[in-house]
Amino acid sequence: MSKEQALEYARSQREVFLNRVMELMLFRTISTDPRHHSDMGRAAHWLQEQLRMMGFQKIEILESSGEPFVYGEWLGAGRDAPTLLIYGHYDVQPADPVEAWNSPPFDPQIRDNRLYGRGASDDKGQLFAVLAALESYLKTSGRLPVNVKVLLEGEEEISSPNLKPFIRENAAMLACDAVYLADDVMLDPETPLITYGIRGGIYAEVIVRGPRHDLHSGVFGGSVDNPANVLARILAQMQDASTRRVLIPGFYDRVLEIDAAERAILNQGPMCDAEVLRLTGAPALAGETGYTTAERVSVRPTFDILGIESGYTGPGRKGIIPSSASARIGLRLVPDQDPNDIAERLDDLIRRLAPQTVDLDVRILAKSHPAVIDYSAPAIEKAAEACRAVYQNPPVYTRTGGTIPITWDLQISLDVPVVMVGFGLPDDNIHAPNESLYLPNFYRGIEMVIHYLDLLAGQPL
Amino acid sequence: MSKEQALEYARSQREVFLNRVMELMLFRTISTDPRHHSDMGRAAHWLQEQLRMMGFQKIEILESSGEPFVYGEWLGAGRDAPTLLIYGHYDVQPADPVEAWNSPPFDPQIRDNRLYGRGASDDKGQLFAVLAALESYLKTSGRLPVNVKVLLEGEEEISSPNLKPFIRENAAMLACDAVYLADDVMLDPETPLITYGIRGGIYAEVIVRGPRHDLHSGVFGGSVDNPANVLARILAQMQDASTRRVLIPGFYDRVLEIDAAERAILNQGPMCDAEVLRLTGAPALAGETGYTTAERVSVRPTFDILGIESGYTGPGRKGIIPSSASARIGLRLVPDQDPNDIAERLDDLIRRLAPQTVDLDVRILAKSHPAVIDYSAPAIEKAAEACRAVYQNPPVYTRTGGTIPITWDLQISLDVPVVMVGFGLPDDNIHAPNESLYLPNFYRGIEMVIHYLDLLAGQPL
Repeated sequence: MSKEQALEYARSQREVFLNRVMELMLFRTISTDPRHHSDMGRAAHWLQEQLRMMGFQKIEILESSGEPFVYGEWLGAGRDAPTLLIYGHYDVQPADPVEAWNSPPFDPQIRDNRLYGRGASDDKGQLFAVLAALESYLKTSGRLPVNVKVLLEGEEEISSPNLKPFIRENAAMLACDAVYLADDVMLDPETPLITYGIRGGIYAEVIVRGPRHDLHSGVFGGSVDNPANVLARILAQMQDASTRRVLIPGFYDRVLEIDAAERAILNQGPMCDAEVLRLTGAPALAGETGYTTAERVSVRPTFDILGIESGYTGPGRKGIIPSSASARIGLRLVPDQDPNDIAERLDDLIRRLAPQTVDLDVRILAKSHPAVIDYSAPAIEKAAEACRAVYQNPPVYTRTGGTIPITWDLQISLDVPVVMVGFGLPDDNIHAPNESLYLPNFYRGIEMVIHYLDLLAGQPL
Repeated sequence: MSKEQALEYARSQREVFLNRVMELMLFRTISTDPRHHSDMGRAAHWLQEQLRMMGFQKIEILESSGEPFVYGEWLGAGRDAPTLLIYGHYDVQPADPVEAWNSPPFDPQIRDNRLYGRGASDDKGQLFAVLAALESYLKTSGRLPVNVKVLLEGEEEISSPNLKPFIRENAAMLACDAVYLADDVMLDPETPLITYGIRGGIYAEVIVRGPRHDLHSGVFGGSVDNPANVLARILAQMQDASTRRVLIPGFYDRVLEIDAAERAILNQGPMCDAEVLRLTGAPALAGETGYTTAERVSVRPTFDILGIESGYTGPGRKGIIPSSASARIGLRLVPDQDPNDIAERLDDLIRRLAPQTVDLDVRILAKSHPAVIDYSAPAIEKAAEACRAVYQNPPVYTRTGGTIPITWDLQISLDVPVVMVGFGLPDDNIHAPNESLYLPNFYRGIEMVIHYLDLLAGQPL
């Protein structure tokens, strides 16, 4: 078995691989829209066929109460060799507004060294790069350097409602030494990025209801509580004005402080002050006292009002006491905060802050766990080595402030590190019109995975 | 000259008067819409013609930079007789949504003892009742019991931007002993209401701007100030959570406390606890500590969020830090608060509360003075007597929590009491589809004014 032969194959098959990604992108796998359920099924069968053609041994379409999982195994490396579980998702975001696309979202096209179309980067292109690396070994050596399990889902864009219990219930089948997930960006085409942590989150809605209908603010002003006044008061008491710390009792009890080594890593990462100022265009930086910007967006929890609405804000003037006021709020959580515990504390606090003179509704709409992976785990060190081999550049390490809910479930249920190294770029326009994938990233991504599989074979994980 | 002859004339002319109100209602005098400027001019000429026909001596259409005023005088009662200035407005609110009307808004119709159409109650019907009373004297006795000046404007529904300076600059021409204004409701057809005070107000907008565009609340959460968090914090600091007092420094310095006699009057008025609960449908009453509901809505100032908007509040979830947040806020003011002074204090406070990490915009969009009229003034006592004569019921006295900005200008510039007794009803649907005027109120309103003019002649004001 030769890594060189696999690399050579991958280079010779670039056009073929690209054509196959474009085939996959033809399926309108919009998971949020039930009308596309049959497209999901067709895409799943297409992926199953790819695995079969590549020589996978056990290939199944596993139905769920939502969209199907595609599962395949190649365990020919033997009991002593490590096992890598590859995760990816074949569903995509909706394409609206379709008229903002320069070419149709489900008619993939190549322009300026980029592949355009919905899913090009998130995640069809990235997941196919990993499959292409597997094929490059299987078609040249007839085997892989390590055992590989592939698990592809069709519900990532709707928060993986069926995958989470599936992983928990099928931990034995999915047993492995590490999970690899290619659904992320590089800093630029020459600088790979290893994401070793994510924040969790809580998404909630608070609704305050007062009078039966909007009231004339002159005739009735002063006689009943104004739901917007009440809501502003509640929300203002969620965060300290000067330290910017969240005021939910016990909120910080389980927040882990990082050590000096990790502090150094994060502060050398991409989210430095100048870069965040540039990306946000904010008048100034601001955040929790005692932490740098890089730390504030990665290892510190937050409270944000994501949306708020009440009364009249249209043209002209309208003097009303609104009958209700509502806000969407988001908490970002860090290890070891438990979203279930924090959601209860949030609910308690809001109920305590609301006066009895209004009706209150608190809805916890989503919760997800934070996760951090030991960045010194061999499975991650080998990924860094594979990056250096391909990009001639060491990877930057980061913990993202965002939330990839499935990371925690994979890590906890399977008790292994989750390796997150992707091939997208910050300007891929994922979730937006004109999504694209930079083709050199696609081709080098395939080679990175070829190197990675080779390196994983070298030592126990 | 005989009051009895005037009353008899008024009764015999009911149908004629009604037809003339309906003529006046044909003009689409929507002052907020510049396309109706020529309708305003036509309505002004129609009113001028009415005054001429009735025997008024000096009749003018006074052009302003907006819509014209109609002015007329009858000063034949002699230098020693009192002079009453009658104010009314011939402009109306827009009729949208037109499809919600049961008959076309500008095609007046009679149904169920009510006159339907835009302006029926506010204010064409009420102002014409006063003109009909004048005509009833002039056509029977050839004279009026007192000197009368009539001033009609076409911009009341857009806050009288041209009338305010006009009154100030023409105080000599408008000199009088009292102003009478019929643009108000009775409690019910048998219970007249005398409004002897109004609140003033400030209408402002606060805009907080942060990042250049909405940000991913995960990737960037914690690094920059969230404009919605900042705005909620600012607004929450405008009112004390427990006493419900406004926290603008110096806000209460010039607020006049009322005496026991007035307290008794207000607390016997229409805004009792049970009625406010019924009208608002609020879960509970709430307001400034130490005052009753009737006092809170009349002689105490307030702070209300009238509208607030930021971020995403549509279907589904969207985790963003909004780039901006804005709120409309309203203060209601009471004598002797000065809206100019309070607006400055409001602006100062908001600027002091906003951190340097966001951009802030505070816009004072409107200001108006509170006013209170001595309810023991003879001009008001005579109005009460006229009410008793017609309705066989003493009037209820109240200070409205609403704002009729021109009241203060009339009172201060002309230095006379402003008498506010109207003929509308709470269910007239003013400013709404299917506006109407209850015909018995129209007819009895004419008679009330006939009695009032007679009573005014009796003694110096």
